[in-house]
Amino acid sequence: MKHNFNAGPSILPRVVFEEASRAILDFNGTGLSILEIGHRTPLFEAVLQEAVSLVKELMQLKEDKEVLFLHGGASTQFFQLPMNFLSKETTAAYLDAGVWGSKAIKEAKLFGNVKVVASSKETHYDRIPDSYSVPDDAVYFHYTTNNTIEGTQMHAIPAVNIPLVADMSSDILSREMDFNRFDFIYAGAQKNIGAAGVNLVVANKGFLEKGNTGIPSMMEYRQHVANGSMLNTPPVFAIYVCLLTLRWLKSIGGVAAMEKINDQKASLLYNTLESLPIFHLPVAPQDRSLMNAVFTMKDPDLEASFLQACKEEGMVGVKGHRSVGGFRISLYNALPLSSVETLTALMKHFASKHG
Amino acid sequence: MKHNFNAGPSILPRVVFEEASRAILDFNGTGLSILEIGHRTPLFEAVLQEAVSLVKELMQLKEDKEVLFLHGGASTQFFQLPMNFLSKETTAAYLDAGVWGSKAIKEAKLFGNVKVVASSKETHYDRIPDSYSVPDDAVYFHYTTNNTIEGTQMHAIPAVNIPLVADMSSDILSREMDFNRFDFIYAGAQKNIGAAGVNLVVANKGFLEKGNTGIPSMMEYRQHVANGSMLNTPPVFAIYVCLLTLRWLKSIGGVAAMEKINDQKASLLYNTLESLPIFHLPVAPQDRSLMNAVFTMKDPDLEASFLQACKEEGMVGVKGHRSVGGFRISLYNALPLSSVETLTALMKHFASKHG
Repeated sequence: MKHNFNAGPSILPRVVFEEASRAILDFNGTGLSILEIGHRTPLFEAVLQEAVSLVKELMQLKEDKEVLFLHGGASTQFFQLPMNFLSKETTAAYLDAGVWGSKAIKEAKLFGNVKVVASSKETHYDRIPDSYSVPDDAVYFHYTTNNTIEGTQMHAIPAVNIPLVADMSSDILSREMDFNRFDFIYAGAQKNIGAAGVNLVVANKGFLEKGNTGIPSMMEYRQHVANGSMLNTPPVFAIYVCLLTLRWLKSIGGVAAMEKINDQKASLLYNTLESLPIFHLPVAPQDRSLMNAVFTMKDPDLEASFLQACKEEGMVGVKGHRSVGGFRISLYNALPLSSVETLTALMKHFASKHG
Repeated sequence: MKHNFNAGPSILPRVVFEEASRAILDFNGTGLSILEIGHRTPLFEAVLQEAVSLVKELMQLKEDKEVLFLHGGASTQFFQLPMNFLSKETTAAYLDAGVWGSKAIKEAKLFGNVKVVASSKETHYDRIPDSYSVPDDAVYFHYTTNNTIEGTQMHAIPAVNIPLVADMSSDILSREMDFNRFDFIYAGAQKNIGAAGVNLVVANKGFLEKGNTGIPSMMEYRQHVANGSMLNTPPVFAIYVCLLTLRWLKSIGGVAAMEKINDQKASLLYNTLESLPIFHLPVAPQDRSLMNAVFTMKDPDLEASFLQACKEEGMVGVKGHRSVGGFRISLYNALPLSSVETLTALMKHFASKHG
């Protein structure tokens, strides 16, 4: 029995693996693999339509929202977004609260002016900056809802008077949220939605219409809307895995039910870590992520030994990101509470031996 | 029993489906799905390295070649290529021999000057233009080796004095070819290499070094080289399917053995079509594609009936592209000779009833 705490690609529901495995041998009783069906067939059109409908239902989206599945990962959106909406004559506002947000800023600067409204870089992104103002004349305000590497999460939606854009790659569909307040949401699929190699984009039709022209066809959101995410051959299998994961999420009660489970998992883990003095939590308590818990050990010499203990219990993906060290436990939607129970039991046992 | 003549996504070897299906439940006995393993783990690094090695071996590439697996499809390369190598001060030369090539031309024009050296558009791309000269001062010459929609294929490598670039999406690894003569090759995977959602790029290191700077990180080939195709989370599963397909190709004897089988399939099909007067072959004989055979029926009223007969025999993907009509039979690497035998037997039977 493995406990998969990978930060992404990461654990997906077992039922998704089982269904995907079957579909590779025989998709829906067609005698064909999901890997060999044409994308412009009713077979795949049904997959795409159901995936889009489930996103709309689970996120409770209003009529003015478009749902797209696009090639690439969030790193693709880092430049595709400003390529569509920014120019040398305009400014976009960005919050710099983590490594991924800072990469988004770097790409945006290639296309126009960037106003960084606040940054927590000086304190190694251990918190979300909490006082800043967003200029009303910026073309959009971009932030990252959850910082996978640093283990921080923004728990409220910022109030701004301009189009609101969020990279939700690592916490989308993990908690209730008024998704309609955003003009543009993107998320690489490989954490809470599906397999690596596809982005989910949810955006206001009106906002998309204001995009730049004269950019490459594959980069123009408007063209993807006009072609229903089939401007070219889409990543068929990755979208199918999204569909299966969305179905699972609906089957367990949707986002509200998911949030309750995610809260349980995070509470158990953070409470355990706080109760055991051998562990250190570097993140400001109010900004702790419910998806990625980051910690170190007060005695660094114990880290190798704790890592070994985790391995012996079949735990994978517990090492911190190569840029920060320590440990990172990812608690994405598909991770069962039982994995956190096993981990926290191990932590207590380890602390009793080494505390 | 299905016979899958899809133009892409298309048939892959049965052993690939079986192995991929197993890996989704348990990858290499790890107890983890291939969909949930981290991309920066030895598990996935081994997948990527073996895939790269097999490409080098099967294509007999020299030391100066880089092999990349990049997000997207050939349509992504249509703009990524000129974004890297073209500018407002320079000119790229393109051959206009089909719908895909003309789309590549459209995207290139966004980045600089394009010299179309020849076009067969006026005759509905029923042939490859055969007399043209390529300017020596162009930054590269781009052509499409096989035109999926029109059913034409370029059987010789053009002799040019400038960097040679080819879109090989629909015939890569189908025939012996001196791949070292190309400075840059790209191919969407979903025909002869694997699943949709990844591009194979094979290019000269020296050529890549000459690329533009100041472009988005995810678009800069140099950065992908420096990061070994892991600049961001790659399309893990799509690359794994490539690996399985490359292994299969090696197991049957590599490209030379593949070419013999492909020749048999194409000869049987074209000879049958030529022998039956109810069918019409619109493509100039010398330019017929070994991968996609396009034909119509002299009596258009028979087309629905022939299509129905194909369906009854379990044949899928036989309709021509929506832009040209008629029929298209794709004969990609994984299509067994037996499928062509079944189809040609049906053709003869149909002709005897309706001829």
